[in-house]
Amino acid sequence: MTPGTTEPPTAWRSTDPGPLNDESVAQLDGWWRAANYLSVGQIYLLSNPLLRTPLSRDDVKPRLLGHWGTTPGLNFLYAHLNRAIKTREQSTIYVTGPGHGGPGLVANAYLDGTYSEVYPDITRDAEGMRRLFRQFSFPGGIPSHVAPETPGSIHEGGELGYSLSHAYGAAFDNPDLLVAAVVGDGEAETGALATSWHSNKFTNPAQDGVVLPILHLNGYKIANPTVLARIPESELRSLMIGYGHDPYFFEVADEPDAEDPADVHRRFATLLDTVLNAIAEIKQKALAGDDERPRWPMIVFRTPKGWTGPAYIDGKKTTGSWRAHQVPLANARDTPEHLEVLAEWLASYRAEELFDQNGTLHADIAALAPPGTLRMSDNPHTNGGLVLRDLRLPDFREYGVDVPVPGATVAEATKVLGAWLTDVIRLNPDNFRIFGPDETASNRLQSVFDATDKQWNAEFFGPEVDEHLARVGRVVEMLSEHQCQGWLEGYLLTGRHGLFNCYEAFIHIIDSMFNQHAKWLKVTDHIPWRRPIASLNYLLSSHVWRQDHNGFSHQDPGFIDHVVNKRAEVVRVYLPPDANTLLSTYDHCLRSRQYVNVVVAGKQPAPNYLSMEEAVAHCTRGLGIWEWAGTEKLGEEPDVVVATCGDVPTLEGLAAVDLLKQNLPDLKIRFVNVVDLMRLQDEKEHPHGLSDQAFDAIFTPDKQVIFAYHGYPWLIHRLTYRRTGNENLHVRGYKEEGTTTTPFDMVMLNDLDRFHLVIDVIDRVPSLQTKYATLRQEMVDRRLRAREYTREHGDDLPEVRDWVWPDARGAISSSEVAATAATGGDNE
Amino acid sequence: MTPGTTEPPTAWRSTDPGPLNDESVAQLDGWWRAANYLSVGQIYLLSNPLLRTPLSRDDVKPRLLGHWGTTPGLNFLYAHLNRAIKTREQSTIYVTGPGHGGPGLVANAYLDGTYSEVYPDITRDAEGMRRLFRQFSFPGGIPSHVAPETPGSIHEGGELGYSLSHAYGAAFDNPDLLVAAVVGDGEAETGALATSWHSNKFTNPAQDGVVLPILHLNGYKIANPTVLARIPESELRSLMIGYGHDPYFFEVADEPDAEDPADVHRRFATLLDTVLNAIAEIKQKALAGDDERPRWPMIVFRTPKGWTGPAYIDGKKTTGSWRAHQVPLANARDTPEHLEVLAEWLASYRAEELFDQNGTLHADIAALAPPGTLRMSDNPHTNGGLVLRDLRLPDFREYGVDVPVPGATVAEATKVLGAWLTDVIRLNPDNFRIFGPDETASNRLQSVFDATDKQWNAEFFGPEVDEHLARVGRVVEMLSEHQCQGWLEGYLLTGRHGLFNCYEAFIHIIDSMFNQHAKWLKVTDHIPWRRPIASLNYLLSSHVWRQDHNGFSHQDPGFIDHVVNKRAEVVRVYLPPDANTLLSTYDHCLRSRQYVNVVVAGKQPAPNYLSMEEAVAHCTRGLGIWEWAGTEKLGEEPDVVVATCGDVPTLEGLAAVDLLKQNLPDLKIRFVNVVDLMRLQDEKEHPHGLSDQAFDAIFTPDKQVIFAYHGYPWLIHRLTYRRTGNENLHVRGYKEEGTTTTPFDMVMLNDLDRFHLVIDVIDRVPSLQTKYATLRQEMVDRRLRAREYTREHGDDLPEVRDWVWPDARGAISSSEVAATAATGGDNE
Repeated sequence: MTPGTTEPPTAWRSTDPGPLNDESVAQLDGWWRAANYLSVGQIYLLSNPLLRTPLSRDDVKPRLLGHWGTTPGLNFLYAHLNRAIKTREQSTIYVTGPGHGGPGLVANAYLDGTYSEVYPDITRDAEGMRRLFRQFSFPGGIPSHVAPETPGSIHEGGELGYSLSHAYGAAFDNPDLLVAAVVGDGEAETGALATSWHSNKFTNPAQDGVVLPILHLNGYKIANPTVLARIPESELRSLMIGYGHDPYFFEVADEPDAEDPADVHRRFATLLDTVLNAIAEIKQKALAGDDERPRWPMIVFRTPKGWTGPAYIDGKKTTGSWRAHQVPLANARDTPEHLEVLAEWLASYRAEELFDQNGTLHADIAALAPPGTLRMSDNPHTNGGLVLRDLRLPDFREYGVDVPVPGATVAEATKVLGAWLTDVIRLNPDNFRIFGPDETASNRLQSVFDATDKQWNAEFFGPEVDEHLARVGRVVEMLSEHQCQGWLEGYLLTGRHGLFNCYEAFIHIIDSMFNQHAKWLKVTDHIPWRRPIASLNYLLSSHVWRQDHNGFSHQDPGFIDHVVNKRAEVVRVYLPPDANTLLSTYDHCLRSRQYVNVVVAGKQPAPNYLSMEEAVAHCTRGLGIWEWAGTEKLGEEPDVVVATCGDVPTLEGLAAVDLLKQNLPDLKIRFVNVVDLMRLQDEKEHPHGLSDQAFDAIFTPDKQVIFAYHGYPWLIHRLTYRRTGNENLHVRGYKEEGTTTTPFDMVMLNDLDRFHLVIDVIDRVPSLQTKYATLRQEMVDRRLRAREYTREHGDDLPEVRDWVWPDARGAISSSEVAATAATGGDNE
Repeated sequence: MTPGTTEPPTAWRSTDPGPLNDESVAQLDGWWRAANYLSVGQIYLLSNPLLRTPLSRDDVKPRLLGHWGTTPGLNFLYAHLNRAIKTREQSTIYVTGPGHGGPGLVANAYLDGTYSEVYPDITRDAEGMRRLFRQFSFPGGIPSHVAPETPGSIHEGGELGYSLSHAYGAAFDNPDLLVAAVVGDGEAETGALATSWHSNKFTNPAQDGVVLPILHLNGYKIANPTVLARIPESELRSLMIGYGHDPYFFEVADEPDAEDPADVHRRFATLLDTVLNAIAEIKQKALAGDDERPRWPMIVFRTPKGWTGPAYIDGKKTTGSWRAHQVPLANARDTPEHLEVLAEWLASYRAEELFDQNGTLHADIAALAPPGTLRMSDNPHTNGGLVLRDLRLPDFREYGVDVPVPGATVAEATKVLGAWLTDVIRLNPDNFRIFGPDETASNRLQSVFDATDKQWNAEFFGPEVDEHLARVGRVVEMLSEHQCQGWLEGYLLTGRHGLFNCYEAFIHIIDSMFNQHAKWLKVTDHIPWRRPIASLNYLLSSHVWRQDHNGFSHQDPGFIDHVVNKRAEVVRVYLPPDANTLLSTYDHCLRSRQYVNVVVAGKQPAPNYLSMEEAVAHCTRGLGIWEWAGTEKLGEEPDVVVATCGDVPTLEGLAAVDLLKQNLPDLKIRFVNVVDLMRLQDEKEHPHGLSDQAFDAIFTPDKQVIFAYHGYPWLIHRLTYRRTGNENLHVRGYKEEGTTTTPFDMVMLNDLDRFHLVIDVIDRVPSLQTKYATLRQEMVDRRLRAREYTREHGDDLPEVRDWVWPDARGAISSSEVAATAATGGDNE
């Protein structure tokens, strides 16, 4: 479809759930058989797609890789949803939790024509079918899982657990959308999936779309039964009711011939119509103003694993067992008996009734597909960039803090950002959301609640305790990082914008989800029909340097390291040192596309260094020399470079320069600050990377560089590994030493404090080493005194805590700094 | 208690649940008030612990950090469990899901005497109480969360979600143990917790202990209500029934004076007795032979958040709201009205009735504590090293593969390991378990099923489909990495042994759990009364280089990077290149204590290089020169070093040496293999680190080193950053380029293939660069041909796939290699 077009709104209409007529049954069954045939073909066949000649060894792929077990069930659901969509004109997308059933989704997209539209070489004829089969899980071809390459998917099928959170993310603010979300019973055992059922307490029945969870209870994983298939039906029913759903059970017997397929189709069609009618009724009520949490239907779909496959292979039960999970006839190529079983299996679908002489699907079956973008594989919501609208962003410059002199004012950076985000929310009432695990206020974004509320659809207890909770709202908070990440991904993948605010230490909970999303972005960069989507933006506040009251448990800045392992094309890491740079950074992030932007920023009161104009210039460069902070003379080389990255390191770095200026007035110090971490890399490694020449111009090729960094020091070495002066780089950063501390105690523990940075300068610059032994000793003593003070008083030494950059001392009093600093502590 | 002693076995007896007499009520209430008083004191007070003088500003800590909200509920439960334990002589441990209620756990351990036993400076008098208060969340003191420092805890209270999996891990194979597991209703929203309720399908009622989940429904998180407190009781009941439990509801009204505290105690005591009697009954039945899954009781414990605290502060509802979550009077020191509220609050506990003139708890209240190790804070299971027994390990040398000549035999390394593990299981029937997410067989450890089964206590469907499933078994498999990790942690922390086998790519799911466990180990290394526990062993098979059929979604070797960010004292990373080295490595891991051992090993057929004797020597050194593989002459310097780490890189490295030997017979190649990754580090950085001298002796200070590595290449640079020859180190490793490939295609994509390694040698060694342009071009051409072949045939070029190390060519035929190689594909 063309960018900018959208599917027609749907009426959430009801239809007669009475039994299907024979034509409809034949059409459904034909489609299903065709999809199953194409699925088996993809897994096994290299050639001879329509079996016009007897199946031979050479028709079979040499390496059989893929998953059959879940596929026929997915195909069955797809066929039946097609029928319902067509009848109801209901915009619907299909989220495939058991995403390793990739061949099924590809088969259905091929049957409805989308596949050939986006991949014109995969034509709807015998040659196209041959190519379709061959490419599957074949070198240079497509993955065996549902993947970005699969039309209609917003959900990578590799790591399991995120289907429901993706589905709800897609449904937010899409009131006309039905999201059919198939949940695998293996997937259902994962933590992320187990909690995601509760998403129904965070959606609004009028304003949001509807998620229809279909628990695909086919009973087995690789080598084990699944938990939910092995509890009594009454217990499973209770579980689903406990999750807030109204469960409908559908079961197909394990014995292949127990029931006429036509009856199975009739039974399911009636059940699906009943369920969709129930949804339509709830939706109508909601549109009429009832926004109480409804008990949404869900379907338990119990079918044999590998349904329609060989019942037994070598005398071992296969269909209806874990043996059907992957490739049931793994040696079909070299085992003649197995080749025969495969041939019979393929023949059982009677492809000759489904495809014509050219290998094209018969028109009467093809007519099951809904028209155009009502096809699930062509629904524009699944190619989010097509429906993406730019955010209307207020001018962030107007939200900046006043900085007459560096350090002359104090602000909580995230609070300043919050004021801008408040207006972002006002200007974008239906395509921007903030997700977080109960930390939006703790992270000082609370002013957003002037413009919106936290969306909630469980019980309300009244205004005494329920602040900013409402049935609709732009902020969604649940104490599950998995949910926040999954919802945001689903929201972005369907063409909207948002951010995830989180404590820095806990963001590791979604390391593996980040991996999968980053890979999705990387792959879609190379799929022409996939349009760019908005970036996934993190705001990591409550960062590791200010976890003073949480002991050692909240301290790990390693998410940055994790992120930087991914492809440079898709990752960006920013550490703005103050409020104005945070504003400028975030404006950039919300405008960007196809990235993961990691922004680490403080929520504690801290000095502002740059005016808005300077902040914009600095952020544009990504890193730069702060001339006002250094002591070098124009045209002369500096003696030493003090570089900082991150708000706490920048504060300590500046305080160190202050001490150096007082004690070594002739020392020529260059002060460098880094906002955009990727600027440190080589331009060949990262699009944001600096050329060697530019790098040397800033860091010098030969001077000692003392680098105070927010995270693990390794990363700075790694990023600058190839630089000329890398031998001169001396990094102070986070070490695994956390204990119960005050903020300054914390930086002392990590040797990142002002006194230690001065010691580092003395130790590193040869001309200072012998000459300034006394100053060095003074610094050692002052550190010890500061240490002792915290142990004695439980607070930082006032002269340290209330330190002000020298130029600002007239403009701000220590007591003002102290007053704001005292508000410390993380509201966790 | 003394190492080696254990608590007495318990009889799981029933008691009369009739109402308590007044003395018991007074004792319970006294303990509870004392614990609450001590909790408030820890959060707020610096001095004046017994308020012998009116509370003054200076008595209050300058920085108020901690969590009040959950604490009184935890204290209430602790008191009541004390009573029940004493009556029943029931060995019990207490797992605190809402672990930020740290002051409560410390208070109870202080009341029952354990605290003073392990920290003799915290005496049971006024001075001890002052120290107890002061140290809490104070620089140099103890964390605000439950932590390793807290006696009786196996559960760090930082990151939420793991209480139930830890509890069940503790219960496995401890048939006499009751684990009271308090689940926070915030925590209950996390993914890990949401799925961990299903743990009851994996325990055996006779052989394992009993977990009593107590859902602490106090309604609020930092700034939001909790989901489970805002669904109808009927829905919550359904949810718990659906999870397989028999829920008992207990509710305390939100209004402070709605009910006489004595009645609250009576009601709860009766409920707890009823529940424990129900457990006793189930347990008796189980011991009599009924091992069907029982419907275990659980308690929903609904009490006001911050129970007994100030009802309103500044006119805002505090108790029974999220405002009580952390520190309700955050400015008590500087706000006189708040100081007064604090004073009244403290006075409300009537400490003068609880503590005598010396500040010692009155004996009649103290008598609530059970004796000795029946105290929950002194239960030896919570200090696992006390009850740890060494594993009885069979001699791994007897399980080795025969390697007459390097490369002359082929094995699946993990399968060989499996045979040894089978006997480890036989010899250690009650203190060793294997955990995995449905991958034990896929990871080729299937022979363990000769000796044991997979423990399962959901429905059984019969032998046709249920292989190796049984009500008891040493292997525990659930499709949740969180569960596997949490169970194993709980099992290890209570003094047993085990391993977690997982696909390499999916282990990132538990990154943050690893963080917390690694920190636990680090901290306990410095707590003298904590005894060392067995290491947490990972077996990461199905590694990233052989995920050919899973497309790009299963590829991320970054867990190693994540692990290496942690303190060197607790992390070890091993990449054995073949079967014998894997055996030797794992024997070492299972003997070790207090580490996290990450072992990455292949499950695919691959050549064996080292005889058992050589393997032991090589693993002991951790890295070394393989003289048989190189071409250097004794006493002469090599021209180039080819180093490898990991099984696939080693194969390619050796194949490259083969090519080099054929084409450049005079080139002196040194071949180095690294098993123990930490050996690369400096001895100052890691206990396993090599001295610079030893490093140079192996890698040379000045020769070019071509290093083929399993993971992201950065890590090798990082580990060798300070080495003399680091400029000469050229690392090939994993790049983010995954797509659908065959195995050799995969290494080609990453430039880690034999042809490219030869190109690297030519490009890097100056004397070769100009001279061997033709050979270089040949390598380029052969790579392209290999590439084309995979694209054409869907399999690797036979000459590549069936390559055999030259010395072994007489001993093994290509067809043998081919036959084993063809079994490829990952059974996922």
